[in-house]
Amino acid sequence: MNSLGEKYRFTSFGESHGPAIGGVIDGCPAGVRLDIGRIESDLLRRKGAGAAGVSSRAAAEEDKVEWLSGLFEGVTLGTPIAFIIRNTAARPEDYEALKDIFRPGHADFTYQAKYGIRDYRGGGRASARETAARVVAGAVAKQLLAEQGISVRAELVQVGEATEQQSMTEEIRKAKAENDSIGGIVRCTISGVPAGWGEPIFDKVQARLAYAMMSINACKGFEYGVGFDSVNHRGSEINHLSGGIAGGITDGTDITFRVVFKPTPSIGIGGRHDACVAVRAVPVVEAMAAMVICDYMVLTSRARTIGRAVQG
Amino acid sequence: MNSLGEKYRFTSFGESHGPAIGGVIDGCPAGVRLDIGRIESDLLRRKGAGAAGVSSRAAAEEDKVEWLSGLFEGVTLGTPIAFIIRNTAARPEDYEALKDIFRPGHADFTYQAKYGIRDYRGGGRASARETAARVVAGAVAKQLLAEQGISVRAELVQVGEATEQQSMTEEIRKAKAENDSIGGIVRCTISGVPAGWGEPIFDKVQARLAYAMMSINACKGFEYGVGFDSVNHRGSEINHLSGGIAGGITDGTDITFRVVFKPTPSIGIGGRHDACVAVRAVPVVEAMAAMVICDYMVLTSRARTIGRAVQG
Amino acid sequence: MNSLGEKYRFTSFGESHGPAIGGVIDGCPAGVRLDIGRIESDLLRRKGAGAAGVSSRAAAEEDKVEWLSGLFEGVTLGTPIAFIIRNTAARPEDYEALKDIFRPGHADFTYQAKYGIRDYRGGGRASARETAARVVAGAVAKQLLAEQGISVRAELVQVGEATEQQSMTEEIRKAKAENDSIGGIVRCTISGVPAGWGEPIFDKVQARLAYAMMSINACKGFEYGVGFDSVNHRGSEINHLSGGIAGGITDGTDITFRVVFKPTPSIGIGGRHDACVAVRAVPVVEAMAAMVICDYMVLTSRARTIGRAVQG
Amino acid sequence: MNSLGEKYRFTSFGESHGPAIGGVIDGCPAGVRLDIGRIESDLLRRKGAGAAGVSSRAAAEEDKVEWLSGLFEGVTLGTPIAFIIRNTAARPEDYEALKDIFRPGHADFTYQAKYGIRDYRGGGRASARETAARVVAGAVAKQLLAEQGISVRAELVQVGEATEQQSMTEEIRKAKAENDSIGGIVRCTISGVPAGWGEPIFDKVQARLAYAMMSINACKGFEYGVGFDSVNHRGSEINHLSGGIAGGITDGTDITFRVVFKPTPSIGIGGRHDACVAVRAVPVVEAMAAMVICDYMVLTSRARTIGRAVQG
Repeated sequence: MNSLGEKYRFTSFGESHGPAIGGVIDGCPAGVRLDIGRIESDLLRRKGAGAAGVSSRAAAEEDKVEWLSGLFEGVTLGTPIAFIIRNTAARPEDYEALKDIFRPGHADFTYQAKYGIRDYRGGGRASARETAARVVAGAVAKQLLAEQGISVRAELVQVGEATEQQSMTEEIRKAKAENDSIGGIVRCTISGVPAGWGEPIFDKVQARLAYAMMSINACKGFEYGVGFDSVNHRGSEINHLSGGIAGGITDGTDITFRVVFKPTPSIGIGGRHDACVAVRAVPVVEAMAAMVICDYMVLTSRARTIGRAVQG
Repeated sequence: MNSLGEKYRFTSFGESHGPAIGGVIDGCPAGVRLDIGRIESDLLRRKGAGAAGVSSRAAAEEDKVEWLSGLFEGVTLGTPIAFIIRNTAARPEDYEALKDIFRPGHADFTYQAKYGIRDYRGGGRASARETAARVVAGAVAKQLLAEQGISVRAELVQVGEATEQQSMTEEIRKAKAENDSIGGIVRCTISGVPAGWGEPIFDKVQARLAYAMMSINACKGFEYGVGFDSVNHRGSEINHLSGGIAGGITDGTDITFRVVFKPTPSIGIGGRHDACVAVRAVPVVEAMAAMVICDYMVLTSRARTIGRAVQG
Repeated sequence: MNSLGEKYRFTSFGESHGPAIGGVIDGCPAGVRLDIGRIESDLLRRKGAGAAGVSSRAAAEEDKVEWLSGLFEGVTLGTPIAFIIRNTAARPEDYEALKDIFRPGHADFTYQAKYGIRDYRGGGRASARETAARVVAGAVAKQLLAEQGISVRAELVQVGEATEQQSMTEEIRKAKAENDSIGGIVRCTISGVPAGWGEPIFDKVQARLAYAMMSINACKGFEYGVGFDSVNHRGSEINHLSGGIAGGITDGTDITFRVVFKPTPSIGIGGRHDACVAVRAVPVVEAMAAMVICDYMVLTSRARTIGRAVQG
Repeated sequence: MNSLGEKYRFTSFGESHGPAIGGVIDGCPAGVRLDIGRIESDLLRRKGAGAAGVSSRAAAEEDKVEWLSGLFEGVTLGTPIAFIIRNTAARPEDYEALKDIFRPGHADFTYQAKYGIRDYRGGGRASARETAARVVAGAVAKQLLAEQGISVRAELVQVGEATEQQSMTEEIRKAKAENDSIGGIVRCTISGVPAGWGEPIFDKVQARLAYAMMSINACKGFEYGVGFDSVNHRGSEINHLSGGIAGGITDGTDITFRVVFKPTPSIGIGGRHDACVAVRAVPVVEAMAAMVICDYMVLTSRARTIGRAVQG
């Protein structure tokens, strides 16, 4: 299905080459004044304007958000916030040639297997364009979190073997120049979450974060705290490294996780694609993380208060 | 909450030192004859009897499953299958000393923060004992999958730097001898899943697998297909390595993923714990993966058929 | 929240006097050609053009559906179908006078209590205008059902004491002339549903139908089969009257239920409201019933097939 | 499926003639001391011991609750509360004769249609015995509500045409003597709920109450406030009668609703059944209502607080 979250619930819709993409945010608390400028700024980051190796379509797309509901004089009503972004730069004719081709490494074949029909125009729903709607919903979540002193910040930390800003950029340029693509790792830090959010068994904070990250196109892995490196360590060495979560519940320290993005498979067949999708994935990672944490915030009910009152 | 899955839904209950642990499987199709012996065999694997570095409690525990509902003459009724395992080896007095201690690296502190109360007896719900119920529910799922020719198989593939069976065992023994613990990586392969299962946006197969794996205690990371190694590769090199999933939907080839388990933090404080929790996590990984895939199997409705009838 | 259904899931959005209302249909099977004309025809029925006692706003509203996603050359893609209807006849200034008034019998007070803020313009989300989006989503559901030979048909059967077409119309006219309003009963019949749909405990067909009906504004009661009249009968008399459902599961005969709508409370305070909301509720009842049954259709998975294969 | 509720979620299991029935309560707040005596008292009410026309099995059944998890020294832990009631009075041999018979008015046929298999022993899950588990979970909910000053109280108000206590009893005795059965109406009043609980569109309080009531066996109708009688009134007469809910949200006054139960169809075929199922349905109605309201209580999060902080 196309919804994420229990109480801060985002529903995504739209094909990359149809009339519009968009989303509905259900469960946004009432009475919050939204800063539209900050939302548009995240959309610009997603477009990666000026960044290395970004596809030409991204730059062309205007990404103007039209707000349809849930706001009254700029303040949230508590009702669903619906928004759309028109697909002004859609050029379906570019993809007409792909009509009868299953692109290697894309979801073309699996979509056909599932639905018995597919929208060959730019991958339809499978296109990275869909993430613009996520960025909007995530930007709203970030503003709700900021009211509570919570920040979410992601950054690109590795491309190939490069781990410095400049060397990463060079790696991407090189791949682009060779009409190739390259993978990358994004690290995300969530600060200010109080201790006690999360659930101990199946709705562990790390489980929902992993679920949200693995729902981003091209993401191949998720790790938090010490992550995969923990295989190389003894318990005596890493007991103190929680990654901000213990037993599925936040411990009040920074939550840190990393996600890896594979090199995009759309190489050498024209089209308008990125040399390193991890670059533009950065605000998407932030958006998804913000929505997950915002959902916990909204879920953290006064149930506990009830119990406490009884306990005395 | 304590439930997993939409249509093959498992609800887990029970504290490690209360009267019993158990579960309810809702959505199991009717008319399937269960092989109870195979379920008990998975429970034995979870106990790790005979394996290196396994805690003494695990060996002592009897793990006898009592089936309460959902079966009639050994065949599933389509109604909820409830089962319990009594905690015969529970020795709460062992933990009395921990009453006022927050063990480092455990969920003691976060549980207290969340609930304002905690069951200090062996971690309560946070104990690995809870996974016995998962293994039962997963073993049922595996039998349903097997009817459709689908198999789920996990194995330990790395401990410290060791990647061979014997060297891994030595690593664990060494850690145990030094009253320490060590991390491990488990690889899982799911074979026989047809193309077309999964959802393209938020219920991607990899997202649900990641969610399920990250819900296992001590699991710090998940990767599928090339995983984190994809950062080291160009798109031209790895286009053909899907890990069995494209665009969130199965492609008909083997699904492969890896999960990492940190070294258990319960070292040097007595108790009855494992030197390498990854050892006994192997059947838990299988169980969780089987439940995820079984849920997709039950979910894969005739909706597609409706569309096809119209098209054709 | 603002979503209905598990697998044929409708999400509604929009304030009556904001830019637009609309919805997202998630889970619509792929490959179905939609007849847009039939959808618009249901919208016209909801407007009640020409019917007795209908508010002037209803007649003025244009209700043009703009389809944003999920369709490609008129055929469903299996992706979310998003649509909007612009609020062309919105006249917020009409309601400016209500800014500081809590209208009796309306949700003004409870909204304020819940959200601490409210959109006083025409009741915001509480307005009957929101049902236009339901009618669109229900009309799509009806077309899916029709492919399987299932029809949903509602009609007004009682107004005051009147139960004939002409006398009901007179009752409404009389109430309207007296600047008053009057209640009504709508009966709905669903034909062609095969035996075996539904769930035996908490997702009984009658439970979901009741839930859907009680979510319509002004609906005060639901009954199916013999309904409240069964208090007047012995078991020996009515054993054969199932209302199409036994034990929560369809039995293959017509499903029949009735819902009652109270007289609208907006009387004597100007505004643009109906003398008998039950009139325009008829297509809304159909829409809601169609969505409930369509959800069961999509949910009725091949799980049963699995069991049968094993049995047989 | 066999679960009810979002955050105070009850999962029911067990066949009436299997080893046990029972349930799991997920989402119960931590730190509440349960009064087990009051829970057992509700179970006794459900058995209807001494009441007119109650089946002999009900009297024989012991209904001893065994608590398996979620409690520590009598206080809730915030973890799932699992409980079972053994079926000590099960006599499957009584039903052997029914093996090849589809009883009229029962769910025998529809279960067979759905599952392709059925447990003919006393209707399996369809038996009213399943409601004992609901009564336990509802009794826990009632205690949580009582902590907040909320009470739930149901009573039988009509049997045939009788509406007084003694005449209702006579009606039932008469039906019993004639080996027949008779319908009844139960009224329920919920007091002490603050204004502002509920959701405006699809999770209206009346919608969830209707859903919960219609999930009770033999329930044929639900109405709240003026209910079906509103068809007989003008808006000018009944504007002030809200039934405690406006626009789906509580208004702080008593919530009142009525449900009708048809005469049980099991007449003249032996078995152990009731002459008026509405008698024993009274505590089941209370239990279901309590769970619905408790769920809203747990759901009513601090989301509103967030908005308010920003506004003020």
